[in-house]
Amino acid sequence: MRYHRIPDETVRRLPIYLRCLLSLTEEGLEKTSSQKLADSLGTNPWQIRKDFSYFGDFGTRGVGYKIDKLKKQINKILKLDVKHKAALIGAGNLGSAVLAYPGFKVYGFDIAAVFDIAPEKISRRIGNIDIEDVSNIPTLSERDIKLAILTIPLDAAQKTADALVEAGIRGILNFSPQHITVPKKVKVISIDIAMDLARLPYYMPAC
Amino acid sequence: MRYHRIPDETVRRLPIYLRCLLSLTEEGLEKTSSQKLADSLGTNPWQIRKDFSYFGDFGTRGVGYKIDKLKKQINKILKLDVKHKAALIGAGNLGSAVLAYPGFKVYGFDIAAVFDIAPEKISRRIGNIDIEDVSNIPTLSERDIKLAILTIPLDAAQKTADALVEAGIRGILNFSPQHITVPKKVKVISIDIAMDLARLPYYMPAC
Repeated sequence: MRYHRIPDETVRRLPIYLRCLLSLTEEGLEKTSSQKLADSLGTNPWQIRKDFSYFGDFGTRGVGYKIDKLKKQINKILKLDVKHKAALIGAGNLGSAVLAYPGFKVYGFDIAAVFDIAPEKISRRIGNIDIEDVSNIPTLSERDIKLAILTIPLDAAQKTADALVEAGIRGILNFSPQHITVPKKVKVISIDIAMDLARLPYYMPAC
Repeated sequence: MRYHRIPDETVRRLPIYLRCLLSLTEEGLEKTSSQKLADSLGTNPWQIRKDFSYFGDFGTRGVGYKIDKLKKQINKILKLDVKHKAALIGAGNLGSAVLAYPGFKVYGFDIAAVFDIAPEKISRRIGNIDIEDVSNIPTLSERDIKLAILTIPLDAAQKTADALVEAGIRGILNFSPQHITVPKKVKVISIDIAMDLARLPYYMPAC
């Protein structure tokens, strides 16, 4: 089956659905409905039905969705049905927080390498991983690591991204507040934590 | 003017447009086009035109958009035309990274208070701010702080959110990977950094 026409906004919501389905499984449930999912997520059931319809799962009227089937479908679409190793670049406060973040394992990610530029950090352990010098980045091509998480200051972001692309990295999660330019074969998702805060006042009632 | 029917997805993109317009201003530009904005942001011009049409700015054919007017409109819609003070709860790695993040000032946010639960952190300075004990959270109601950023472990998230609501907080940016429940008068935006990583493999070419 091909899923070529799934809108980006739907793709953005799929991991949210997936995490919700995982916690329903933990609760021992086997079926759910768009209404139940919507209630858990604070969204609309019609949006969930529409999103699921893109990959051909319309549920069964009166019965709803089989959680296990849905999870498998979403995992497959997102290519999370295989494990992914990721490298973390930047072992500062943000990098440490990312490494300690429990959420990555939920989606099958394994942060398998950590790099930094500061000589005093090299060879120190963070989590269970020895911090390597950024000059080791080229070795990623032999280590089956295709994803990188950038938690470095903005002045180093582009140069580091170039080295990662050279080392065969195909996806970058960029926390640096700098736009980085990469070839088309590489996907960058940038996170600007200030932008999420910037949406909050819009929703706050005047008081 | 009322902006009641702006879709959430458009609201989500407005801070992105705003930041882009701010950097165009820094470059000395006064006008732009949906095509130029789309090129900078890696999106489609039609989406930008549609988003802007929700607040009645259709630009001028052949001339495009006046940057200054657009910035003012977006700032007003997002209620960023006034300064906002925010409290940070949790002075660990993630909290420290958030506090050092340069992006908040761009949108007029001022992190004016920092709280933690660990006795050894209280009264230490972080950035230019004395860390306060979480038992001080009730004082927020007298300090004109209506926004809070939660960077605490998940087991403490709900209890802290309850205290924040009690202290009159109206918006919470939640980095804890836990769903928190608040009254309707309070808006929560949750950030799960793993979810953004979970979208990456979808876009990576098979190789």
